Amino acid sequence: MSDTGYTPPEVWTWEGESGGQFASINRPVAGPTHARELPVGDHPFQLYSMGTPNGVKVTMMFEELLAAGHAGAEYDAWLIRIGDGDQFSSGFVEINPNSKIPALVDHTGEAPLRVFESGAILLHLAETFGAFLPADRAARTETLNWLFWQMGSAPYVGGGFGHFYAYAPEKIKYAIDRFTMETKRQLDVLDRQLAERPWIAGESYTIADMAIWPWYGQLVLGRLYGAATFLDAESYANVLAWAKKIDARPAVQRGRMVNRTFGDESMQLHERHSPADFETRTQDRIGTTG
Amino acid sequence: MSDTGYTPPEVWTWEGESGGQFASINRPVAGPTHARELPVGDHPFQLYSMGTPNGVKVTMMFEELLAAGHAGAEYDAWLIRIGDGDQFSSGFVEINPNSKIPALVDHTGEAPLRVFESGAILLHLAETFGAFLPADRAARTETLNWLFWQMGSAPYVGGGFGHFYAYAPEKIKYAIDRFTMETKRQLDVLDRQLAERPWIAGESYTIADMAIWPWYGQLVLGRLYGAATFLDAESYANVLAWAKKIDARPAVQRGRMVNRTFGDESMQLHERHSPADFETRTQDRIGTTG
Repeated sequence: MSDTGYTPPEVWTWEGESGGQFASINRPVAGPTHARELPVGDHPFQLYSMGTPNGVKVTMMFEELLAAGHAGAEYDAWLIRIGDGDQFSSGFVEINPNSKIPALVDHTGEAPLRVFESGAILLHLAETFGAFLPADRAARTETLNWLFWQMGSAPYVGGGFGHFYAYAPEKIKYAIDRFTMETKRQLDVLDRQLAERPWIAGESYTIADMAIWPWYGQLVLGRLYGAATFLDAESYANVLAWAKKIDARPAVQRGRMVNRTFGDESMQLHERHSPADFETRTQDRIGTTG
Repeated sequence: MSDTGYTPPEVWTWEGESGGQFASINRPVAGPTHARELPVGDHPFQLYSMGTPNGVKVTMMFEELLAAGHAGAEYDAWLIRIGDGDQFSSGFVEINPNSKIPALVDHTGEAPLRVFESGAILLHLAETFGAFLPADRAARTETLNWLFWQMGSAPYVGGGFGHFYAYAPEKIKYAIDRFTMETKRQLDVLDRQLAERPWIAGESYTIADMAIWPWYGQLVLGRLYGAATFLDAESYANVLAWAKKIDARPAVQRGRMVNRTFGDESMQLHERHSPADFETRTQDRIGTTG
């Protein structure tokens, strides 16, 4: 490694944008870069997101809630184009000072309530509707164990493995090895867990599955970073079977379409304001392709 | 960078231990490496942990609960030496299949209940005792926003910045720049949040503060990675003032001592079984120094 001999300075200074794909959205400071309010639709829940794995967690949850008959879970999903810096608008920063998608505003109470971090949103919706989070104390605790597990583990997959394997401007062997090892360890944790029970937290499909599937399920299904072969995804047979089972759910298929901006165009529903949108796919083409 | 030209193989294979300090505890597989049961003491809560930032979150919480008069929060804290692989024992894996500290067993119900992931443990204890998590819906939601924020953000500090700045066998400029930028962004998020309110989630001291302080508070106090100057910690004045305010709390000072194995010996209480242990510090010296 030719970095041998590099000595960090006493005080770090920003040398400006660098760092491969998505570099332009990384900054060493927080706060808004421009003034713009967020749009607000008619439904009780206003979601501001994009179809990344963290975004899919929440759209899966909304679609599952609606499919389960919770009519109060109707939502407007607005597209936040993170590559264009939409997450740095004054309106977005007000509802999520961390400038990351997804962010939700809950209008069901007396005052609008901001909810950010995908795990917090899943828990908020589960508690609001009494769904996908077991009431039994032991089962609820185990579900939350795995919900928090996902939050603390996936940064090694997304910010670590995915970045260095797929996006960094050059391939750094040490970093790829480090994060590949951890990603495989995490897949093995899940594989052992799923060897003994149908769902992550036990006998029922919960927000733990919805948090974990968009990352680890899609990883073994070959949809993230083109890394299924590299990670030997086939060897995690229990994860793969569970991933396919979830992938076949109609609500999950709808959830994957919402705020999606890449891949097959027929799978992209840039904004979602009603169940009928899945049929018509009235994407925001005016702004994007004229 | 002399890594130029490195091409990852089609399928990754483990080349064995490498990767600087703590390398020996990183593996690409999960599961136990040896059979050993965990010790169990007399108190309702059995904690298996070590005095890292994630460990301190929970011992802070227990000591704060006891200081606030929740006598039911008495606990035994057992030391899990992660450098020795204690987290890979059959007993530990049973209560946390992810083999990370801290892990808790709650014996207050009909059957022992495992709780793992520091965020899940904080939430579990907060709900069990109705403490440090506001009952008001808006304040509770905001507290959980920041609890989840910490879980998803700190891996960039610990597994990213700290690793590449302090522990990796060589200094890789690209990786250090990447994770320093993100760490500084996160500190700025907190600094802006704390500019307008006394505690992270608003008007009261909550589990969000207890999750965030051991990482970000100790970082600006210069206790992690020797990086305060490098990160220009003084520039995050609101974080620094908040960090000092929390650091002065007697319960936090006790929490920091529990399961601690480094630094000033007078600050190390390897195991904690009663409030009196803080006076006598009957560390497990038999096993460690003869």
